[in-house]
Amino acid sequence: MEQKQHQYELEMKVRDYEVDGQGIVNNANYLHYLEHTRHEFCEHVGLTWREMNDRGWMPVVRKVEITYLSSLRMDDRFLSKLSITRKGVRFIFHQDIYKLDGTHVITAQVTVVSVVNGMPARGDELAEVFKDYFTQE
Amino acid sequence: MEQKQHQYELEMKVRDYEVDGQGIVNNANYLHYLEHTRHEFCEHVGLTWREMNDRGWMPVVRKVEITYLSSLRMDDRFLSKLSITRKGVRFIFHQDIYKLDGTHVITAQVTVVSVVNGMPARGDELAEVFKDYFTQE
Amino acid sequence: MEQKQHQYELEMKVRDYEVDGQGIVNNANYLHYLEHTRHEFCEHVGLTWREMNDRGWMPVVRKVEITYLSSLRMDDRFLSKLSITRKGVRFIFHQDIYKLDGTHVITAQVTVVSVVNGMPARGDELAEVFKDYFTQE
Amino acid sequence: MEQKQHQYELEMKVRDYEVDGQGIVNNANYLHYLEHTRHEFCEHVGLTWREMNDRGWMPVVRKVEITYLSSLRMDDRFLSKLSITRKGVRFIFHQDIYKLDGTHVITAQVTVVSVVNGMPARGDELAEVFKDYFTQE
Repeated sequence: MEQKQHQYELEMKVRDYEVDGQGIVNNANYLHYLEHTRHEFCEHVGLTWREMNDRGWMPVVRKVEITYLSSLRMDDRFLSKLSITRKGVRFIFHQDIYKLDGTHVITAQVTVVSVVNGMPARGDELAEVFKDYFTQE
Repeated sequence: MEQKQHQYELEMKVRDYEVDGQGIVNNANYLHYLEHTRHEFCEHVGLTWREMNDRGWMPVVRKVEITYLSSLRMDDRFLSKLSITRKGVRFIFHQDIYKLDGTHVITAQVTVVSVVNGMPARGDELAEVFKDYFTQE
Repeated sequence: MEQKQHQYELEMKVRDYEVDGQGIVNNANYLHYLEHTRHEFCEHVGLTWREMNDRGWMPVVRKVEITYLSSLRMDDRFLSKLSITRKGVRFIFHQDIYKLDGTHVITAQVTVVSVVNGMPARGDELAEVFKDYFTQE
Repeated sequence: MEQKQHQYELEMKVRDYEVDGQGIVNNANYLHYLEHTRHEFCEHVGLTWREMNDRGWMPVVRKVEITYLSSLRMDDRFLSKLSITRKGVRFIFHQDIYKLDGTHVITAQVTVVSVVNGMPARGDELAEVFKDYFTQE
């Protein structure tokens, strides 16, 4: 199966309390996985969430579009991948989750804007941190 | 403020453990609010989640598009509203959350399809249950 | 069935995402129910969580002892009840959850101490708020 | 700092959505950490949660006693450790969480009993799996 190109990937594993009464990971938990992946990515590029907070930077999620293609179950291991594009003040995280056998689980676009000391910002401070990771759409 | 027309609404209140380190409700929790509202709506129209499971009906979420407009905080009360349209085999739940003062918090479209005894279905059994609640787009 | 005497009770309902892969409410969610009940109780006696924070008061949980007697399932409604005793600087919340048919679900003791402006406190400010609700052990 | 002897340990990291409005990990999430540690331990000794379910074995938590000694915050890494003792039909998991600098975060005793095909069991099937890991109290 051909997979999209991504700039970063993180291996994770389903925790049993994330599975719901239908035996599959509850929809909302995928937003947790995506958020955790973005935070680990930030740390990977050199900036922890805590450091951002200390500087008064707050990336704010404006929009999430997520399509559920198949389901994760108990004990499943998976790869959570992301790449980024920038459109004006918006950073678009293109995020996909795959099982280790290549099955595509979800695809998502997460739109984030930058808030600095409580005010909307152009995002140049984040763009500098992410600069080696932008892809062309 | 003019609000959209909805067929059903549920008053809820933020629980403290739903608030994250930024003092606002974590993004993923809105999916919980939306899911809970759909389930309460089903019960309102005469069919509990448990009864659906017993009949082998499983509404499956295929896509969520959610736009975050403002934030809920600790102790906030809010109205979670929905209406439904049908497009072929897809049921589109149009869901909005407002604070009691009318502030628009999130707007979402949740696409659901019907699975019966594990097989994709046309959704006529759900359409019958929801029939008094469909709106024209 | 004889039930213990409690000073406060709150009716709640299981939300589907609180149920895990075994079809029953996940153990950790009962701590959420107990916490939510304590916060609603505080609001009931005249002090919201937010007001406490504004005054620099922070009730801190030191210990939880919880015994699981039976399980809650999807759609179950239940009563979450509490009473309080004070032992020196410790407030002991005696909390029990019952199904509406009287089945005892969990029994718990939650030990809370008072922190004021970041320093351990004797708890006299909380004791004043709770004064009409203490029971003798 | 002298730490207790444990038979198994797992390194984990706080995920941001586990932190609540006070900037610290919400009490209920520690039960998730403890549960996840027990499941990883079972997999470590050769039996996944899914395999147990397939065989009709269900370890059921009867009691949790947890004492909160200090708090985990955003980005914290920690060690989740456990050992087991057996008392008749009860398995007692002695679980402790430490920050990487040795700070003791929580100490807990989790009592588990064995249910096989829906009936209470003596637990000999679990005892066989855990046999190299029991400690004397």
